[in-house]
Amino acid sequence: MNVNGKRYRTIWLKESDPSIVQIINQQVLPFKFEILDLKTVEDIRRAIKDMYIRGAGLIGAAAAYGMYLAALEADESNFDQQLQASAEVLKKTRPTASNLARAVDIMLAKLLRSNADLLQKRENARLEAQVIADSDADSCRNIGLHGLEAIKAISSKRNGEAVNILTHCNAGWLAFVDYGSALSPVYAAFDAGIKVHVWVDETRPRNQGASLTAWELCGHGVPHDLVPDNAGGHMMQHGLVDMVITGADRVTRKGDSANKIGTYLKALAAKENNVPFYIALPSSTFDFKMRDGIKEIPIEERDAAEVRFMSGKTANGLIETVQICPDTTPARNWGFDVTPNRYITGLITERGICPASEQGISSLYPEEINEQ
Amino acid sequence: MNVNGKRYRTIWLKESDPSIVQIINQQVLPFKFEILDLKTVEDIRRAIKDMYIRGAGLIGAAAAYGMYLAALEADESNFDQQLQASAEVLKKTRPTASNLARAVDIMLAKLLRSNADLLQKRENARLEAQVIADSDADSCRNIGLHGLEAIKAISSKRNGEAVNILTHCNAGWLAFVDYGSALSPVYAAFDAGIKVHVWVDETRPRNQGASLTAWELCGHGVPHDLVPDNAGGHMMQHGLVDMVITGADRVTRKGDSANKIGTYLKALAAKENNVPFYIALPSSTFDFKMRDGIKEIPIEERDAAEVRFMSGKTANGLIETVQICPDTTPARNWGFDVTPNRYITGLITERGICPASEQGISSLYPEEINEQ
Repeated sequence: MNVNGKRYRTIWLKESDPSIVQIINQQVLPFKFEILDLKTVEDIRRAIKDMYIRGAGLIGAAAAYGMYLAALEADESNFDQQLQASAEVLKKTRPTASNLARAVDIMLAKLLRSNADLLQKRENARLEAQVIADSDADSCRNIGLHGLEAIKAISSKRNGEAVNILTHCNAGWLAFVDYGSALSPVYAAFDAGIKVHVWVDETRPRNQGASLTAWELCGHGVPHDLVPDNAGGHMMQHGLVDMVITGADRVTRKGDSANKIGTYLKALAAKENNVPFYIALPSSTFDFKMRDGIKEIPIEERDAAEVRFMSGKTANGLIETVQICPDTTPARNWGFDVTPNRYITGLITERGICPASEQGISSLYPEEINEQ
Repeated sequence: MNVNGKRYRTIWLKESDPSIVQIINQQVLPFKFEILDLKTVEDIRRAIKDMYIRGAGLIGAAAAYGMYLAALEADESNFDQQLQASAEVLKKTRPTASNLARAVDIMLAKLLRSNADLLQKRENARLEAQVIADSDADSCRNIGLHGLEAIKAISSKRNGEAVNILTHCNAGWLAFVDYGSALSPVYAAFDAGIKVHVWVDETRPRNQGASLTAWELCGHGVPHDLVPDNAGGHMMQHGLVDMVITGADRVTRKGDSANKIGTYLKALAAKENNVPFYIALPSSTFDFKMRDGIKEIPIEERDAAEVRFMSGKTANGLIETVQICPDTTPARNWGFDVTPNRYITGLITERGICPASEQGISSLYPEEINEQ
């Protein structure tokens, strides 16, 4: 996508030195646009863990590039051992999203037990990481094309009024290598001249909606309004929401979907108020080995500080962090929740839109569902 | 309740000068405990409008004291006219809570068309405002006694573990003259030695949970954890919530309940996960003339700034306000939502607990339901 007229992805290899991975620093958005250099596996680990980069697809691509850096760091004699060690380090960063471990495993399959020499292994690593990143972007672009049809269908019933789309967290291009998942159809619709308006759940505690989704939409010129996470039920009761589209971090073979905490509440309200609720995801977000999302998907817990404090820009333009509760009040901070498949109208994938059920998913992924 | 060992209400007449109304300034909690003097109807109006004081019962009592100050400001010749004018000013402050207009009307009924002389009318005003304030506190104390039974029933099935109670916004003593509605049974249970633990929804955009509920619970020593508004669905799915108790701003004759925005989402999740969902309210919060809450209860919209900014304490101990979204991102800010009666396990009133239905409410309020 474009930032100030220039084309960007969220992660790439430095043009002048492809041994360096560069990222947009999402910790300082929306107030500062900053590129960071990541030179080691440890840099990648920290970038993922501390959320300089975040979002299911992006941390997958980052892990792939991390394995590329691991190949640069490893020596000939201990190559496989060192790669395995780096793989473990990267997999331990964040447990919920499917894409990360999947990307690491793809890289390991490519690099371990290889007959190639060290230089060739490093080149193979670079190429494979690039494939993972490119197919992430490509999948997201196709998600946009399929999701566009769902938006068009609703638009045709709106009598020239905008289609009001509620989204949660950030599943735009910042959550992937490019284009996004939930926002990809929004951009496709907007670019096709269809009137859309996005309700942006601010998405506490990290406020990815307020800081990332809103920033993306400002950059693309898409009409939007920020709302507190509390507002969606009221809005749906009063006909202000035509559809909900969110991303996902892990979707099971039957369509149970883990996404940013609070998504489940929106799904409940959507069902109750007959509002279509879509989950947009590339294939890399599925976990076909899992079935019952509530029982099986690991839900990351993060530091209480993310709840107890908020960051933002002061009147002087400085970034400040403020405590929002009493000194002695503790907090709990689950990062994700699971929406059972029965609340989901459809899954928008790069292969098309299918029902959120094992049968529905098998229509698009026969090779994954039917073989197991 | 006690603050640092001293007994406080939220609003009272200054001991040394009963022509002055004093309040705890809730804008600066939890970081500063400050008393403000309100000397005129205009002071009261601003205190309500700008939320120096807030909460259904408290703004009712404040409006009553406001009418008392109006009586002090009015002269003999234009008394009724000036009181009507002040009544309109106070009623216009905030439209959603039942208690405010009700208190103003009670005061008007007492003071208009009176044969008493000016001094006696002013004394009548002071006494009636006191009655309204005292019965608010008294009702809340009794809500605590009735709600205690509901908590005890759950406690008996918890095998010695704490009863985990989720609450939203602030319906503690800070929302009333004393004791609170939703928190009154919590305090009663805690004081009776029953193990309780409160999940405090932070309650964006104004964060009354994080700043007021948490402050109250710290002050009383009640175990609690702050959680983002997004977390409740996940928590209920995983058995972490034994009951939900919230307050209300207006409850119709059939039990549809308006409360702080986001309450409806918690009610949906509670129903889905078989978690008892109670609404606690004094009689003054009922609006027996309304039936369909979604259609009839006016939902206040407030300034977008409350969503776009957050306030809190910096590392230096200063109160700072930070912008949390891009400069050009607009926001919408509905203050309340309506939970349809079918999601409510019971209404905890000062007269007892009843089902959330016209029939249920008539069992406790026959004089209100059966006469209409």
